[in-house]
Amino acid sequence: MSEDSFTVSDGDLVLLIDINKLKNKYMVRITTSNSNSLKKISGLGVLNLNKLVGKKYGSIFEFGRKKLFILQPDIMDKLDSLQRKAQIITPKDSAVIAINCDIKNGDYIIEGGLGSGAMTIVMANLVKPEGKIITYEKSAANINIGVSNLKKCGLDNIVEIKNKDITKGISEKNINSIVLDIPEPWLVVKHAYMALNPGGHFASYSPTMNQVELTINEIRNHNFLNPYTIETLQREIIVGEGGTRPSFEMLGHTGYITFARKVLDIQ
Amino acid sequence: MSEDSFTVSDGDLVLLIDINKLKNKYMVRITTSNSNSLKKISGLGVLNLNKLVGKKYGSIFEFGRKKLFILQPDIMDKLDSLQRKAQIITPKDSAVIAINCDIKNGDYIIEGGLGSGAMTIVMANLVKPEGKIITYEKSAANINIGVSNLKKCGLDNIVEIKNKDITKGISEKNINSIVLDIPEPWLVVKHAYMALNPGGHFASYSPTMNQVELTINEIRNHNFLNPYTIETLQREIIVGEGGTRPSFEMLGHTGYITFARKVLDIQ
Amino acid sequence: MSEDSFTVSDGDLVLLIDINKLKNKYMVRITTSNSNSLKKISGLGVLNLNKLVGKKYGSIFEFGRKKLFILQPDIMDKLDSLQRKAQIITPKDSAVIAINCDIKNGDYIIEGGLGSGAMTIVMANLVKPEGKIITYEKSAANINIGVSNLKKCGLDNIVEIKNKDITKGISEKNINSIVLDIPEPWLVVKHAYMALNPGGHFASYSPTMNQVELTINEIRNHNFLNPYTIETLQREIIVGEGGTRPSFEMLGHTGYITFARKVLDIQ
Amino acid sequence: MSEDSFTVSDGDLVLLIDINKLKNKYMVRITTSNSNSLKKISGLGVLNLNKLVGKKYGSIFEFGRKKLFILQPDIMDKLDSLQRKAQIITPKDSAVIAINCDIKNGDYIIEGGLGSGAMTIVMANLVKPEGKIITYEKSAANINIGVSNLKKCGLDNIVEIKNKDITKGISEKNINSIVLDIPEPWLVVKHAYMALNPGGHFASYSPTMNQVELTINEIRNHNFLNPYTIETLQREIIVGEGGTRPSFEMLGHTGYITFARKVLDIQ
Repeated sequence: MSEDSFTVSDGDLVLLIDINKLKNKYMVRITTSNSNSLKKISGLGVLNLNKLVGKKYGSIFEFGRKKLFILQPDIMDKLDSLQRKAQIITPKDSAVIAINCDIKNGDYIIEGGLGSGAMTIVMANLVKPEGKIITYEKSAANINIGVSNLKKCGLDNIVEIKNKDITKGISEKNINSIVLDIPEPWLVVKHAYMALNPGGHFASYSPTMNQVELTINEIRNHNFLNPYTIETLQREIIVGEGGTRPSFEMLGHTGYITFARKVLDIQ
Repeated sequence: MSEDSFTVSDGDLVLLIDINKLKNKYMVRITTSNSNSLKKISGLGVLNLNKLVGKKYGSIFEFGRKKLFILQPDIMDKLDSLQRKAQIITPKDSAVIAINCDIKNGDYIIEGGLGSGAMTIVMANLVKPEGKIITYEKSAANINIGVSNLKKCGLDNIVEIKNKDITKGISEKNINSIVLDIPEPWLVVKHAYMALNPGGHFASYSPTMNQVELTINEIRNHNFLNPYTIETLQREIIVGEGGTRPSFEMLGHTGYITFARKVLDIQ
Repeated sequence: MSEDSFTVSDGDLVLLIDINKLKNKYMVRITTSNSNSLKKISGLGVLNLNKLVGKKYGSIFEFGRKKLFILQPDIMDKLDSLQRKAQIITPKDSAVIAINCDIKNGDYIIEGGLGSGAMTIVMANLVKPEGKIITYEKSAANINIGVSNLKKCGLDNIVEIKNKDITKGISEKNINSIVLDIPEPWLVVKHAYMALNPGGHFASYSPTMNQVELTINEIRNHNFLNPYTIETLQREIIVGEGGTRPSFEMLGHTGYITFARKVLDIQ
Repeated sequence: MSEDSFTVSDGDLVLLIDINKLKNKYMVRITTSNSNSLKKISGLGVLNLNKLVGKKYGSIFEFGRKKLFILQPDIMDKLDSLQRKAQIITPKDSAVIAINCDIKNGDYIIEGGLGSGAMTIVMANLVKPEGKIITYEKSAANINIGVSNLKKCGLDNIVEIKNKDITKGISEKNINSIVLDIPEPWLVVKHAYMALNPGGHFASYSPTMNQVELTINEIRNHNFLNPYTIETLQREIIVGEGGTRPSFEMLGHTGYITFARKVLDIQ
């Protein structure tokens, strides 16, 4: 980050956080041309974006009676700001997928199931600028929401979306990783094998044990190395005046994630 | 990955996995000049690296009575192959740090405490090629092990190591994230604040509740937004002949991770 | 259970469960004398208890448009039916206390902190008919609720309640177990030591790590054997049409429970 | 406990714990007749039981170079002292079964699968003196071990063991609870229904999700109220010199426990 980037400029993606209610976050792209500078932001009202230009990141912006932190949104803020249709893959799980598939700059990744685009956004953020995400999604409604979310986060140029059912086949080859969040991932295992590089990563996120069983058993019918499934639980720790303790709030379950790597032969 | 990269070439970092004992992994850099092509690999014996050149990734290499998968090591393999002096930050935790700090290509990151270099390697893998990790480590012995591990993984060019105690101060500025794994992280909070960008991320990994309390309380003395601490548990699910169940083996605890973002004012 | 007890009789404690909303449970004592047989039950309306007499346990009772299972309440039903003022000790935790203290018929137990009486009821249910619970509670308001709950469950004759602050001292001796749910349990450790039998059990339930630390450290100042603290998490597994998975709902934290046994000397 | 019971007497069941290695526990019945007073105790040597008589419970007994705490064994000590053939139901799980089935003095309980007798011992300890456990076990080898363990704990008079396969039928009626730890619990559901009281409790402990599914589905074919399955995790918290943290050691999985109550009709 150069010094210049410490102040809000035209074209920046900016996050405003209510200093009294930190869960209230508003993400907006700064556009200062006459026709675009007045922006209606749901929950805030109409904001003149010109007034943000030149403000320091990290400072407080007064808007009516509200006080708002001005920040560059990070990946967690982006995930918080998505329009959601269904359950998204939570950050704890997308992080586990990212490290187990070694997702990084330059990777070419096939995604099966766009959903609201949360996993897509996490992956696009990691593979840019040299990599690419190709997402198969059969629901046009999901594509509408997902594309809108990708644009909002400025990551749509990293993602190609195909309105296709991934269980019918994958046309790409030489792919680094395939990441699935679909009801019947076992139907994709053979297509995934064909599309992946030698050593390429297969990952599938599923809520039920039965999906895990069917997927693992299908993986074992192909030349995949070491399939394994993991479950991740996460809990906040509260340091309060009364003492330190885990949070009473906790998600009891999200999904199981199954991984495997393609090899040419397992004998 | 181009087609060329599907066969082993001079200079490649190669992983060999015993097909009968998948936990036995050997990571080696291919060097084919006369003087370097014979390589003694602990647990395997002396290997003529020339014999690997031209082999297909994903295929099986026969070495004596052993059969070995030939793969390009991923980040998980690299972590498995590290020489360890102390407990390392496990992948579940390094993944959580990476997503909460939004670590990605181009980031400049200060690390406090090199340890055996596991977290360093995860971060270097994500920030390359444009970013950089600057690691403060006061123990020369740790530096020896850590540098050796970084070289082994081919990531030493992304990391600068300083033989300094980070609790005494940080000389860098305009940093994206600061990641600590040291006994007294609370002593670094004020230095971290000075070094970070507005909106920059502070992360600290600590095994005990008492460290969390002291760190959170010190964070609250500075202009940090929304400090929070999380604990992550991970468990494998086994799909076996007798049925599907969680693994009996599980790490009961690794560490708590505390996060916060720098702002200029919190009023 | 004799055959006679399979039908509702005068004096029985009866549980009615709405067959369409199993969480709606109504617990009522059958009293058939003229003046008491009409009973107003919150959420149900006025019930003529005479109509229940002679009905088979396990059968369905039609009351207006509602259909209700007739059951003898078990301990879980009793806990569900309590009037609550504050957080109660949950069944997973009271079960862990019961087995670690070996609570059973004939035990004499001191309880510190009545709360709404949930733990008291679990213990009274186990020590009857020969044992006894003596509960210290300094809040008269808690005593009102707790006694009402004990009476409702027919266990008030097993429990003696003292309107006293247990941190000021315990007058009983030769006690099998002492079970605490109070803010400052460490203040009771020395009194507990005096009151307990050799080999007697100390148990303390606390939400925070800081309470655990202070309690364990005070225990170590006395002749207690092997103090230890445990945390218990519980999750429901759902077998649904879509497959089998853990419940999304889960309590992230209730309390830590610390145990120790009195000995005469630890050298 | 009367004052008399504070010293070791003929006939007592006594626990000796090595004060330097608290995991080393020795459970012995005091027999002072000439022919029985010398007892060889595995791991300790030959002990003259007469020397223990009259010693105070809670005091330290010197035996050779060893120092041993003298205690009355509690249920946890008894479980620690069992000869084990297979995995036992752990205390966290037996406690959960006990409270969900409301097991208490006077209950008549059918157990399917004796194993090493751990669950039997927990239940016998709770139903005595007025209740009874009737255990079906088809393996004669298990019966040998289980009976030996029950005798060791002085609980064999509360338990009747039948060398029968419980999946073939249950001859008892009017039972309070049925508790299963067998490979195919779903085969017992219909027999359990016939044997149970109205309102009686069915409980089944199984390691795999598949067993849970089959059991729950069979329960749904009969008039059982509200079947549910729970999983319990337990972790120790360590208060050490370096701070307070959860233990690194933790059992990742033991078993799932399924519960249901018999009713006469569910419409």
